[in-house]
Amino acid sequence: MSVVNLDAKFAKFADQWSPKIVAQLNDMHVKAVKIRGEFVWHRHAETDELFFVHKGQLTIRLRDAGGERAVRIGAGEMFVVPKGVEHKPEAADECEMLLIEPAGTPNTGDAGGARTVTDSPWI
Amino acid sequence: MSVVNLDAKFAKFADQWSPKIVAQLNDMHVKAVKIRGEFVWHRHAETDELFFVHKGQLTIRLRDAGGERAVRIGAGEMFVVPKGVEHKPEAADECEMLLIEPAGTPNTGDAGGARTVTDSPWI
Repeated sequence: MSVVNLDAKFAKFADQWSPKIVAQLNDMHVKAVKIRGEFVWHRHAETDELFFVHKGQLTIRLRDAGGERAVRIGAGEMFVVPKGVEHKPEAADECEMLLIEPAGTPNTGDAGGARTVTDSPWI
Repeated sequence: MSVVNLDAKFAKFADQWSPKIVAQLNDMHVKAVKIRGEFVWHRHAETDELFFVHKGQLTIRLRDAGGERAVRIGAGEMFVVPKGVEHKPEAADECEMLLIEPAGTPNTGDAGGARTVTDSPWI
């Protein structure tokens, strides 16, 4: 039981695309992550995924049978990608964001591959 | 699937101690609430509860067999009250915060009483 200061947590690491756990809420983890550039298209069949932008600008590309669209999420904004929806996060400049999702959710969902992280460390 | 801007959500209501749902993540609700003054002592036997301060300063008093203590949570900070832990939120000046907890969690937990809200509206 300790207070989590987001600025302090983000100051503790520099690596991108490598989520760090900052809090646990029942079976969910709150993870801090820095990103820049494009991630891979993937989906999470079993869970929604909440993105909250702390600093910078996040773009999430979404695609389904109806086509592809992009949503832009700025600081102080959040967005929930529903389970099963294919998505690809990206950021032109570094973006600091929180992810909230069940513990153990792999960042690449069903896509797998070299960028997969399943066991994020606490920070 | 829409972007949730916290400033815009908090601008839509003025009443205190009356949570509004702004997002859903699996079985969890993200609720925006404004508080000022003291709430009632209570505990949630079945769930952790995440508090995230958007503006202002939140104090959560906690008590257990070891005694009573208070944690102060400022803007950009979060705190998780573990399930079963007795707590009382309070704020000397108005505080805007998010709560994340399972849908339907009553704000007064096991305490009940006149200030109980179970069915928060979406905003």
